[in-house]
Amino acid sequence: MTTPNPNLVYLTRKCEFSAAHFYHNPELSPEENQRLFGKCNNRNGHGHNYTLQVTVKGEVDSRSGFVLDLQLLKDVLNREVLDALDHRFLNHEVPEFRHQVPTTENLAIAIWRRLQPKLQVARLHRVRVYEDPNLFVDFYGEE
Amino acid sequence: MTTPNPNLVYLTRKCEFSAAHFYHNPELSPEENQRLFGKCNNRNGHGHNYTLQVTVKGEVDSRSGFVLDLQLLKDVLNREVLDALDHRFLNHEVPEFRHQVPTTENLAIAIWRRLQPKLQVARLHRVRVYEDPNLFVDFYGEE
Amino acid sequence: MTTPNPNLVYLTRKCEFSAAHFYHNPELSPEENQRLFGKCNNRNGHGHNYTLQVTVKGEVDSRSGFVLDLQLLKDVLNREVLDALDHRFLNHEVPEFRHQVPTTENLAIAIWRRLQPKLQVARLHRVRVYEDPNLFVDFYGEE
Amino acid sequence: MTTPNPNLVYLTRKCEFSAAHFYHNPELSPEENQRLFGKCNNRNGHGHNYTLQVTVKGEVDSRSGFVLDLQLLKDVLNREVLDALDHRFLNHEVPEFRHQVPTTENLAIAIWRRLQPKLQVARLHRVRVYEDPNLFVDFYGEE
Amino acid sequence: MTTPNPNLVYLTRKCEFSAAHFYHNPELSPEENQRLFGKCNNRNGHGHNYTLQVTVKGEVDSRSGFVLDLQLLKDVLNREVLDALDHRFLNHEVPEFRHQVPTTENLAIAIWRRLQPKLQVARLHRVRVYEDPNLFVDFYGEE
Amino acid sequence: MTTPNPNLVYLTRKCEFSAAHFYHNPELSPEENQRLFGKCNNRNGHGHNYTLQVTVKGEVDSRSGFVLDLQLLKDVLNREVLDALDHRFLNHEVPEFRHQVPTTENLAIAIWRRLQPKLQVARLHRVRVYEDPNLFVDFYGEE
Repeated sequence: MTTPNPNLVYLTRKCEFSAAHFYHNPELSPEENQRLFGKCNNRNGHGHNYTLQVTVKGEVDSRSGFVLDLQLLKDVLNREVLDALDHRFLNHEVPEFRHQVPTTENLAIAIWRRLQPKLQVARLHRVRVYEDPNLFVDFYGEE
Repeated sequence: MTTPNPNLVYLTRKCEFSAAHFYHNPELSPEENQRLFGKCNNRNGHGHNYTLQVTVKGEVDSRSGFVLDLQLLKDVLNREVLDALDHRFLNHEVPEFRHQVPTTENLAIAIWRRLQPKLQVARLHRVRVYEDPNLFVDFYGEE
Repeated sequence: MTTPNPNLVYLTRKCEFSAAHFYHNPELSPEENQRLFGKCNNRNGHGHNYTLQVTVKGEVDSRSGFVLDLQLLKDVLNREVLDALDHRFLNHEVPEFRHQVPTTENLAIAIWRRLQPKLQVARLHRVRVYEDPNLFVDFYGEE
Repeated sequence: MTTPNPNLVYLTRKCEFSAAHFYHNPELSPEENQRLFGKCNNRNGHGHNYTLQVTVKGEVDSRSGFVLDLQLLKDVLNREVLDALDHRFLNHEVPEFRHQVPTTENLAIAIWRRLQPKLQVARLHRVRVYEDPNLFVDFYGEE
Repeated sequence: MTTPNPNLVYLTRKCEFSAAHFYHNPELSPEENQRLFGKCNNRNGHGHNYTLQVTVKGEVDSRSGFVLDLQLLKDVLNREVLDALDHRFLNHEVPEFRHQVPTTENLAIAIWRRLQPKLQVARLHRVRVYEDPNLFVDFYGEE
Repeated sequence: MTTPNPNLVYLTRKCEFSAAHFYHNPELSPEENQRLFGKCNNRNGHGHNYTLQVTVKGEVDSRSGFVLDLQLLKDVLNREVLDALDHRFLNHEVPEFRHQVPTTENLAIAIWRRLQPKLQVARLHRVRVYEDPNLFVDFYGEE
């Protein structure tokens, strides 16, 4: 079995998680928080069904036809991301958001940092997070 | 301008809201709550982007070609449902859920009861609530 | 080959068409038209990608496993509906809308009246028209 | 905890499965099969990502706020439907299709007959099967 | 509150508008227009629900966790794009299309040119326009 | 008619096809095949509704406003891809998969190689293949 020449492909896997959050920066005044974050500042919190797309990049293995073992990717996603974020209140239960506002921007970066060291076989290319169908953020590990 | 014979149509309008919730019945033991509700029992809460479909039923007005004024429907939806539920923690901020578990089933019924008395011109036919794209509940006002 | 007992199923086929329209009732004053129809009253027109769902109802034929010949349904849909409505300006080019406002309500009824006499083998059950993903109208031939 | 009056709701759960099939009736001539089934008659088979929506109907339990235990529904769906159909060649591996053409119509009926005896707590109301996003069949157990 | 190192993210916001158009180049003969544009050449016009995705690129602000103020983006989108295009006949009412054919390609470029000078805080990265779910055009400001 | 400066756009067209396949490498033992491919190794095969997105890149023609003739793209897609893959069993009927495992990765590369030599007017930029809504592969012709 062959794959014609080593070839670079990008594989994307989609999954979902549900979480609650609110936006608040303790270094700002209540008025400033309200102005900046509007109804997202309600400390009771509100929630989203987040959609996560994880893209890895690599050459196709000629023996399997795969860029990476999908079961491995699924295990890493479950262990590093979904177990930590799904059915959680981000501000109270996820360490990254003790000192960061849990915006979609910071969430995409946090998920990149959780996944990147655990994916050995294929390079992480992009993390995309949809807060809802009309808003999403991409992070490519660029600084 | 005419509409051919009075004719009965069903018009459905879709909208979204984001909310947090958790499942807990104070009359049950912690173990029973855990068994019944699993990870949804986490009191910190988690959240969803709910999708709401409201269906009204009526004859088409021959002058306008409408079954009801869409602006009116939108105003009622905003005032009676979205202002009360969007960006809220259902258990803590919505009166219906002080004594009911905020399941999708109870949410559909609560929305029906909020809308039904306010829609005079057209009859409310169905309330459909999606908790996520894979689960939804319909309520037709049947007892 | 058998189908277990004669059984009643409902088959739905989805298709799309693009059309322009505007809302105007010549029997009303300009002010009344503006009040009733808002920005939809702009006589230059605007447009939509309409989605049409046609549902037929019938018993499954044990020889074919079909409720009706899908090619036949497709031909009827193309000839009676899509050829007449797709890439048209509804007010100017579709006879039904010379004397009716081309609302989604009237469009659903017009499509029903075009299809119903042409579908002999299976009974037409429902016509659903989406004006956009957030608004749709159902017509079941009820008067 | 209460649910306001016993109330009837309809809960729908969506899931997917992938399967291969072809259409062929051994009682017909090759020409007749070709005429009736076109490219679906290719005996090598082709495939679909089917989407299944299962709707149950019942009163909301005031203690849990549920119409039925979702985990139970998921278990029944997995055991009775997905294990038998997912990643299968319907004609060769699913008993119902030894003597029936595996059309979407017959598939909806077969799934109903598999589920109906196993759902005790809530009544099965509808089985909907999408062969692709543009074609679906509903079965309500009507004969 | 901190965001870990300045990091570059891409944020995309989706919105919709409805418009009518037709394709016609006055410098070409009627036959040439018909050959080139087919049924899109019908001067009465037809319409679409366009979907617009606007992507901006920038570093996350550590104070807010945002790459830009979403309300500002929304205001710019409404003022520069939606007010001008929504519920309009592109050929007759939008200045860019007096001397250009209003194809999806030219529409994406026109929207880029409207937005680019008004977005100061974050750099415009991409404009994507869907004419319908099966066809879209991306413009990145490349010449 | 003009298009403002020559400008580079990316146009994407989406289409679907249905096919069956299974994963198997004859150079590996049955146990190794089972370990590597799991239930996808079932030789009877299973199937998918694949979604294909083809992106071409080029400058907008000022006369037509098009980056390429959409009818030409559609013809190439039908002749080179859909006729060969739609309603086929990939392992048995598509030459590329006699010596390659028909994974989504290899399928994206195979479609690129079929299309690339036939698109003269515009450069092929990307082939994206969805095996299902949760998994897709991109190929940009990179080696």
